[in-house]
Amino acid sequence: MKPSLPKGTRDFSPAEMQRRNLITSVIAGVYHKFGFEQIETPAMENLTTLTGKYGEEGDQLLFRILNSRLNESKNKSGIADAFQVMLDKGTNSELLTERALRYDLTVPFARYVVMHQNDITFPFKRYQIQPVWRADRPQKGRYREFVQCDADIIGSNSLLNEAELVTIIDEVFQLLGIPVSILVNNRKILEGIAEISGVPENIIDITIALDKLDKIGIDKVIEELKSKGLSDAAVEKIKPILTFKGSATEKIAFLKSLLAGSATGLTGIAELEKVMALAGSPSVEPDITLARGLNYYTGAIFEVKAKNVQIGSIAGGGRYDNLTGIFGMEDVSGVGISFGIDRIYDVMEELQLFAIEHLQGHSSRLLFVNFGEEEQSYCLPLLKQVRSAGIAAELFPDAVKMKKQLAYANAKHIPFVALAGSDEMNSNKITLKNMRNGEQDIIEITALLPWLQGKLYNNE
Amino acid sequence: MKPSLPKGTRDFSPAEMQRRNLITSVIAGVYHKFGFEQIETPAMENLTTLTGKYGEEGDQLLFRILNSRLNESKNKSGIADAFQVMLDKGTNSELLTERALRYDLTVPFARYVVMHQNDITFPFKRYQIQPVWRADRPQKGRYREFVQCDADIIGSNSLLNEAELVTIIDEVFQLLGIPVSILVNNRKILEGIAEISGVPENIIDITIALDKLDKIGIDKVIEELKSKGLSDAAVEKIKPILTFKGSATEKIAFLKSLLAGSATGLTGIAELEKVMALAGSPSVEPDITLARGLNYYTGAIFEVKAKNVQIGSIAGGGRYDNLTGIFGMEDVSGVGISFGIDRIYDVMEELQLFAIEHLQGHSSRLLFVNFGEEEQSYCLPLLKQVRSAGIAAELFPDAVKMKKQLAYANAKHIPFVALAGSDEMNSNKITLKNMRNGEQDIIEITALLPWLQGKLYNNE
Repeated sequence: MKPSLPKGTRDFSPAEMQRRNLITSVIAGVYHKFGFEQIETPAMENLTTLTGKYGEEGDQLLFRILNSRLNESKNKSGIADAFQVMLDKGTNSELLTERALRYDLTVPFARYVVMHQNDITFPFKRYQIQPVWRADRPQKGRYREFVQCDADIIGSNSLLNEAELVTIIDEVFQLLGIPVSILVNNRKILEGIAEISGVPENIIDITIALDKLDKIGIDKVIEELKSKGLSDAAVEKIKPILTFKGSATEKIAFLKSLLAGSATGLTGIAELEKVMALAGSPSVEPDITLARGLNYYTGAIFEVKAKNVQIGSIAGGGRYDNLTGIFGMEDVSGVGISFGIDRIYDVMEELQLFAIEHLQGHSSRLLFVNFGEEEQSYCLPLLKQVRSAGIAAELFPDAVKMKKQLAYANAKHIPFVALAGSDEMNSNKITLKNMRNGEQDIIEITALLPWLQGKLYNNE
Repeated sequence: MKPSLPKGTRDFSPAEMQRRNLITSVIAGVYHKFGFEQIETPAMENLTTLTGKYGEEGDQLLFRILNSRLNESKNKSGIADAFQVMLDKGTNSELLTERALRYDLTVPFARYVVMHQNDITFPFKRYQIQPVWRADRPQKGRYREFVQCDADIIGSNSLLNEAELVTIIDEVFQLLGIPVSILVNNRKILEGIAEISGVPENIIDITIALDKLDKIGIDKVIEELKSKGLSDAAVEKIKPILTFKGSATEKIAFLKSLLAGSATGLTGIAELEKVMALAGSPSVEPDITLARGLNYYTGAIFEVKAKNVQIGSIAGGGRYDNLTGIFGMEDVSGVGISFGIDRIYDVMEELQLFAIEHLQGHSSRLLFVNFGEEEQSYCLPLLKQVRSAGIAAELFPDAVKMKKQLAYANAKHIPFVALAGSDEMNSNKITLKNMRNGEQDIIEITALLPWLQGKLYNNE
């Protein structure tokens, strides 16, 4: 039998893990520096926790787990009975499945907060880096199992939180070396636009149409607005937004005059200005066509695009109210962000941002060649000494042909190889070979560790 | 609705994550130092990869995933059709489930090796730290989702590998501060015992009975051997093993004479001696009643017990042949170990081995109290400065009562709090409060960073 992987899932090789760990450790490091604490939740949640939280489409994309009592039962008619019930109901019943794999980290986090509310001191700043699962149609860059890296602050309305999250985004991408635009909007600005157009109930249609401006152009956007039932007068009100060109400051001044008649709209602009001022990052750009997760976000909306790379957003987030309301804990406002590891990885590959040590496996710095029993005994104390200094090292386990052992060192990108034959053993020496340039040094065994440290840390 | 967790699963709080991360990072660090490289595999595997690999009982304990096309179908009669087929077959058919969550890391590793054999240079030394799922009956210390930390070397028969793994076990538990016995046995010794008893086919019955010696005593073991059909003569041959007392060296000498008539048994003893000599650890003890995973292991068998703690084994492993044979890749021998994070965690709690910083959440070292807009603006550049030095710090986001802000610092175990009111602002100073002893210092803002570094790193 030829083994295979389920569609949309992946193995990660040592070299890939090296690069993925780089990305997650940068993100976790920045989260930590900003006072966020890590939690983890189980992969499985009760179906009642997950269903109804992601819309009807989301419910269809949950990976449901078959009840284990169906497995356990060895009674054929017992299983058949369960199926008969399902057949009668014509639906997935509780007999079949009561649990599913988590779809994101946000709903499990809300559940966590409600269940542990008596142990949590608010505001609660948590981060979480774990895989999620979606039964989506797999395609390039979209997987059925992928890692999310979320940070949320809940239990505080302060705009300082939005500013902190923008600063985190800024710092993460600076550390990774990815030039980005951090697009910021506010749901209240979108509400203001819908309000001054005289059709507040059409906020979603308007937002969807505005969002397409870059792709389909002004005329098509106007056409779409009209097809959604907006009057010519309403469209006239929106038109200046479509044609406006200017700097961030000019854009805000323009919005202030446009939305002068909408208290909500003006609040949205004031919030946007405050967040931008507090964050003080040149990468931040107001973008009033940004509508990501509109049904969900109630204040700030963030989205991050890598510059000069054709790929979707690589991070995003926003302010939400009442996240925990679905579990009966009311009036807890929060704001959060999420980084997409897979796309960040692709961007870094495309921009060639991985340093040489991240393109290789995370392996030993020194390999002792194995020539047989006696030579092994000569090398083992040296190996121990090198490892005691915290340097990853190994002795080839079998006394096979040297060519094979050197090929192993090359494949694992091990930079130095140590050889000890009878000449070296008779004179308490060891030969060291630099695998990059082929240079060989014969040194006293007492000099091995300083020699290696010099090469590895001082590039001697 | 009151949210809950599926039976046998757990949330991990910041303080628990701190401790769990300590354990996994020690293990990963040692694996790395010994030249092992990390891989990851997906949570889901095809059922065909997993079934038949863990015995009939294991198959029952797989968490199977419902095919998503059952979810996708909105056609009631479509779903009913699928159920009708299952009803007719009276079994879980492929229509219902084709995937399951991994049950361990070993079978996915075998699949990985077979699928990626052309990209791997052997011997392949990999480690893997990921959760596994088993539909076991949950009980104290046994969970349905738990993390395994495996390392394996495959493609080498050398006993150096066994010795390296024993050394890894030794070093991990030294670093964690847990006193352990590393019990070592060899399947060939068990085969030798069965052989000299004249009933080689009874190896499993003999081993199971020997394994119970500590619990049930000599008489009951003999009774059990007889009940399994062993003759009095066979039992007489085994009896000396049950009564033998002596040091490791004496035990080996005794075994050599006992098994003098079994070539296999003598090979097993020679292997055991060699592994013990190469590892050279005083924690290693030969234990001929050790039979862990007998159906699976072909050479060395390891098991680790914490001293002075009543708990099962906290790590284990052994040599296996032909791991990848199940996927059509023959003659690949390997040896591996696995650490049990949950039990190691429990042992460390019981022995009070977690240092104070691991008993607390992994949080900020400094909290700036928030007194309002102006004070915020005064503190923000200082916050930025502290973070730039790599120190985790935060500003309370809301200008609420100071008592609440100090309670937050206490709950998060933040050791220092910075306060700036009008007095401090007028004199470019800041007040620093030590949350452990209540001491307060008023210092120049330019002295903040060195002051904090002195307190945190030099215990000034």
